[in-house]
Amino acid sequence: MWSYSPPLRDMQFVIEDVLGAPAAWGDMPAFAGLDAATARAVLDEAGKFAAGVLAPINGAADLEGCIWKDGEVQTPAGYREAYRAFVEGGWAALACDPEDGGQGLPALLNAAFNEMIAAANHGWTMYPGLLHGAYDCLRAHGSAELKHRYLAKLASGKWLATMNLTEPQAGSDLALVRSKAEPADDGTHRITGSKIFISGGEHDLTDNIVHLVLARLPDAPAGTKGLSLFVAPKILPDGTRNAIRCDGFEKKMGIKGSATCAMSFDGATGWLIGEPHRGLSAMFVMMNSARLHVAMQGIGHLETAQRNAHAYAHERVQGRGRPIAEHPSVRRTLWSLRALVEGERVIAYWTAMLLDEAHHHPDAARRAEAEALVGLLTPVAKAFFTDNGHRGADEALQVWGGYGYVHEYGIEQSVRDSRIAMIYEGTNEIQAIDLLQRKVLDDGGANLDSLLTLLEADARRAAGDPVLFEFSDALQSEVAMARAATAMLLDGRASDSEWLLRVADDYLRAIGFTLLAWAWMRSAQAALPMAGTSAWHGDKIRASRFGVQWLLSESAWRWARVRAREATLPPVSA
Amino acid sequence: MWSYSPPLRDMQFVIEDVLGAPAAWGDMPAFAGLDAATARAVLDEAGKFAAGVLAPINGAADLEGCIWKDGEVQTPAGYREAYRAFVEGGWAALACDPEDGGQGLPALLNAAFNEMIAAANHGWTMYPGLLHGAYDCLRAHGSAELKHRYLAKLASGKWLATMNLTEPQAGSDLALVRSKAEPADDGTHRITGSKIFISGGEHDLTDNIVHLVLARLPDAPAGTKGLSLFVAPKILPDGTRNAIRCDGFEKKMGIKGSATCAMSFDGATGWLIGEPHRGLSAMFVMMNSARLHVAMQGIGHLETAQRNAHAYAHERVQGRGRPIAEHPSVRRTLWSLRALVEGERVIAYWTAMLLDEAHHHPDAARRAEAEALVGLLTPVAKAFFTDNGHRGADEALQVWGGYGYVHEYGIEQSVRDSRIAMIYEGTNEIQAIDLLQRKVLDDGGANLDSLLTLLEADARRAAGDPVLFEFSDALQSEVAMARAATAMLLDGRASDSEWLLRVADDYLRAIGFTLLAWAWMRSAQAALPMAGTSAWHGDKIRASRFGVQWLLSESAWRWARVRAREATLPPVSA
Repeated sequence: MWSYSPPLRDMQFVIEDVLGAPAAWGDMPAFAGLDAATARAVLDEAGKFAAGVLAPINGAADLEGCIWKDGEVQTPAGYREAYRAFVEGGWAALACDPEDGGQGLPALLNAAFNEMIAAANHGWTMYPGLLHGAYDCLRAHGSAELKHRYLAKLASGKWLATMNLTEPQAGSDLALVRSKAEPADDGTHRITGSKIFISGGEHDLTDNIVHLVLARLPDAPAGTKGLSLFVAPKILPDGTRNAIRCDGFEKKMGIKGSATCAMSFDGATGWLIGEPHRGLSAMFVMMNSARLHVAMQGIGHLETAQRNAHAYAHERVQGRGRPIAEHPSVRRTLWSLRALVEGERVIAYWTAMLLDEAHHHPDAARRAEAEALVGLLTPVAKAFFTDNGHRGADEALQVWGGYGYVHEYGIEQSVRDSRIAMIYEGTNEIQAIDLLQRKVLDDGGANLDSLLTLLEADARRAAGDPVLFEFSDALQSEVAMARAATAMLLDGRASDSEWLLRVADDYLRAIGFTLLAWAWMRSAQAALPMAGTSAWHGDKIRASRFGVQWLLSESAWRWARVRAREATLPPVSA
Repeated sequence: MWSYSPPLRDMQFVIEDVLGAPAAWGDMPAFAGLDAATARAVLDEAGKFAAGVLAPINGAADLEGCIWKDGEVQTPAGYREAYRAFVEGGWAALACDPEDGGQGLPALLNAAFNEMIAAANHGWTMYPGLLHGAYDCLRAHGSAELKHRYLAKLASGKWLATMNLTEPQAGSDLALVRSKAEPADDGTHRITGSKIFISGGEHDLTDNIVHLVLARLPDAPAGTKGLSLFVAPKILPDGTRNAIRCDGFEKKMGIKGSATCAMSFDGATGWLIGEPHRGLSAMFVMMNSARLHVAMQGIGHLETAQRNAHAYAHERVQGRGRPIAEHPSVRRTLWSLRALVEGERVIAYWTAMLLDEAHHHPDAARRAEAEALVGLLTPVAKAFFTDNGHRGADEALQVWGGYGYVHEYGIEQSVRDSRIAMIYEGTNEIQAIDLLQRKVLDDGGANLDSLLTLLEADARRAAGDPVLFEFSDALQSEVAMARAATAMLLDGRASDSEWLLRVADDYLRAIGFTLLAWAWMRSAQAALPMAGTSAWHGDKIRASRFGVQWLLSESAWRWARVRAREATLPPVSA
C-alpha cells in the first residue's frame, strides 16, 4: 500500500556531499550557529512529521474532501490535528526571522521540508502554503503597525494567510482585476469584489485568516500598474467579523482536502500594504520562493511515485515467480524516475542555497550574482519539475497495471494532485516565457552565459577522470547546444518577434536537461569516493549514468525544435 | 462548457476522400449493398446518439458513480435510458451478422461509431464494450446450442456480456489464473473462483448478463495452455439465478459510471466454449477488434479534448481583449492535438478497413495480406493512440488554466477517463513487446517490410508534386529510419536478447510516427484538389504540415534510443 518514507539519506547526500551547504552557511552570519548535524536533526524531525502525521491522512482526505455550509468550511478528518502538530513542532516558523519568533533556518532546509510535506500530503500543505509568502510580503512592505499585528502570529502559525489575486475574468492576466478599494476616514479601506481559486480562503484550522488582496484604488490607472495590495483579516482587530465570505469551493481533479474557495469582499475592511498602485511589486517579493516551493511539490510527487513504484515492483510477482521489478520495461521506468528525481533535487537545493546567498551573503556582489542565478533557475525549476512530477507519477502508475487505476493504491491520487502544480503560481507556459524572454534574451544572454560558464567549469574539472569523463562530455555537449540555440534566438529575435513565444516551452525543457546533465555529473562525482565499497553510492552513479544514457537524448530533440525557425505556426481557424 | 459534436465531416473525409472505402466495399460481397450515402446516414444517426443521448449524462455520472447494494449494482442517472436508446437504435447489431439479426456493417463504420461513443461518454460505453467480442467468440467457437441461445440476444443488445479473465494474483500474466471448472454429469461445468476488474460484471441495464470465464479443468496443464473458456449466464436457461455474485466494485480514477466488479463464482453453472484447454485461443478471436476498439477510445478522447480546447480558447479573452487562441503557445497546443487526431484517424480507419478485408475479401491472398497488416498495425494503434489520447487531454487541460482543474469544465474528467485505455486490453508495454517481438522480429522483419514498402510506394507517387514533396520526403526519411533500426535489432537480437525488451516502447512510438507521416501525406493529398477554394480543406493541409514540421521530430529521438544498444539498464536494487 501507498506510504511515504522521507529520503533523508538522499537529502543529506545532496546537501552535504554534492553541494557542501554547511560550509556555505559558515560564510553567512545569519546561519552562523547552523551545522550539518543540526540540519540533519531538523530534517529527521520533519520526516517524522511528514511520514507519521501527514501521510496517513492523505488518502482518506481525498475521498472525503471538505464540507461547505453557510460560508464555513470543514476540513477532512485529521487535518486539524495535523495542523496543531505543525504549529507545535515549530514548522511554521522554520524560515521566519528569530525576531518574530521564527527559527531563521535557511531556505534550503525549508525547501527540503516542503518537498517532504508535499510528498506526504499535497492537499493539506495548501493551507500553510502561503504563510511564508504573506510573512515575507508583510515584513518587506507592511507598516510597523501591520508588522506588529501579523508577523509573530504568522511565524507561529497561529493564523494562516491567503493570497487573493484571481477573479473570474482575470486568470493569468492580472491587468483585468476589478476589485475595488475605497479609502475610509480612519485610514483603512473598504474592499469590494469577487475572488476565485483562493486556497484556504476559509477553513477550521485557525481562528483568524489573514487575506492579502489585490484591488484598485479609486484613482488607479488601468492595467497591472493600478493594483494595490491590502491585508484584510477574517476577524478584525476589535474581534468582530470582517465583511468577507466564502461562497463555496471548487470540485477539483485533485488536492481535494484543500478548499479552493470563491470569496466575496463586501466592503471588507483592509489596510494598504506598501505604496498605492504598487501591489504587484509588493507581491513579487515572494515570487521566487513561492515558485521554488511549487517546484518542490513536483519533486515530492516524483519521489513518492518512484519509491512506491519501486516497492510495488518488488512485491508483485508475475511470470515464472519473479518480481516485475526484473522486467526491462519496469526497470527502465524505475531508473527513469529515480534519475530524474535525484538530478532535480540537486538543482532545486542549489537554487535554494542561492536564494539564501541572495538574502544573507555579506558580500553584495555575491548577493547580486546569486539573485541573478535564482531568477534564471526558478522558472526552470517550477515548470520542469512540476511537469516531470505529474508525468512521472503518471508513468509510475503503469507499474501497478490495473491496480494503479484504483484509489487505494495511492498512485492515481498522486497523478491528480500533482497536476495542479503545472497551473498555479504562474502556468508553466508563463514560466517558459519568463525564462526565455525576460531572463535569457532581455539581457542579451549574459545571465545565461554566466550560468553556462559555471557548469562548463565544473565539466572541465571532471574531464580527466576515468569515470566522470562521460558525464563531463555529456554536459559540455549540452552546454554547447544551449549556447548555439540561444545565439540563434538572439540573432533572429528582431526579425521574427514571435519565434521565442513559439518555442519557449521547448527551450525551458532543454535548459532543464542542461541542468540535469550538470546535476548528474555532480551527483556521480560526490558518490565516487564511496562507490567501491557502498552499493548505495554505486546506485547514485548508476542513476546518474542512466540519466545521461537514456534521458538526456530528449534535449537534442527539444533544441532541434527551438532552432526550427522555418516551422510555421498558422493562426487557428475560428 | 464541455460538449461533444461529432466530427462527421472529418470522418467522411477520411472514409471517402483519403481511403476510398466505398470503392473497397464494392469488392466485398458482404458489403454489396453499402454505398457512401448509406454510410453517411449511419454515422449521422450515430452522431446524434453520441451527442444527444450519451454526452449530456457524462459529467453527472462521473460525480454520481454507481451504487452497490447486496450484490446488485445501480448505474448512474440516465444510463438505463441511454442503453434503451442504444438497443432501439440497433447500435448493438451494427457489425453483427444479418442472420443473427445484425446489420452486417463494416468494422470501419463500427470503429467510427466507437470513436463517437467513447468521446461522448467513455464510462457508459464500458457496458456494451464487450458485446461484439463475446458475440464474435461465441460465433466462432460456440456449439450450435450456445449459438442458438446467445447470438441473437447479444446482437440485439437484449443481453450484455462480460469477460472474466483477471484474478487478484493474475493481472497481465494469465498463466496464474486459478479458477476451476468441474465437469458435471449433464455436460455442464461448475465454476469456482474469484475474478476482479470485471467491467459491467453486474448492472441494471439488462435482465441477463452473459459472462465468459477463463478457468481450469481438473486435468488442465499448468500455464496458459491449461485455460478453458466457459459461458456462465447470470440467469440460467431455466430462469433461476446462477451462483455468480458481485462482491463490490473498485473506486477508480475515472470511468466512474462503469462498475468494475469483483465477482465470485461459487460452483456456477457454465458451458464450455470450444476445445478444452484452448480458452485463450478462443478468446484471441476478438483480440484485434477489441484492441482497435480501445484505440478508438484514445482517438475519441483526443478529439473531444481538441474540440473543446479550441472552443474555449476562442471564448476566453485575456490580455488586450484578444482570445487566448491567438497566443502562440495555445495555438501550438491546438494544432498539435488536431494534427495528431487527424493523422490517427486515417491510420485507425485504414486498420479497420483491413480488418474488413481480412474477414470478407473474396481473394484469399488479399485476406492473408490484410490479416498480417492488421496484426502489425493493431498494437501500434492501441498503445500509441491511447498514450496520445491521455497525454493530449492532459496537454489540452492547460489551455483552460485553473478552470481545467475544475470538474464542470469537463477536461479533467477526460484526463482521468482516458488513462484506463493505456492499461486494459493488454497494457501498452505488452503491446510494444507484441509489436516488436512477435509482429516485427519473429518473422525476420518481412511483415514490417511489406508495410514500409506500401508506405514508400505512396511516398514515391507524391514525390513530384509541388505541395506534397515535403510530405513525401518526410515519409521516406521516416521509413529509412525504421528500416535501419529494425535491421540493427534483427542483427543484434541473438547476442543481446534483452535489447528489444529495453527499447520496445520507443520502437512502438517511433513506428507510430512513421505511420503518422504517411497519414499526414495522404490527408494533405486528399485535401489538395479543394484547398484553393475551401478553407476547411486548407486547414487539413495546414494540420498535416504542422504535424510534419513540429511533431515528427520526436521520431528521430525515439529511433536514437532504439539504436543505443550500448545504453545499459542495470538491475534495480531491492
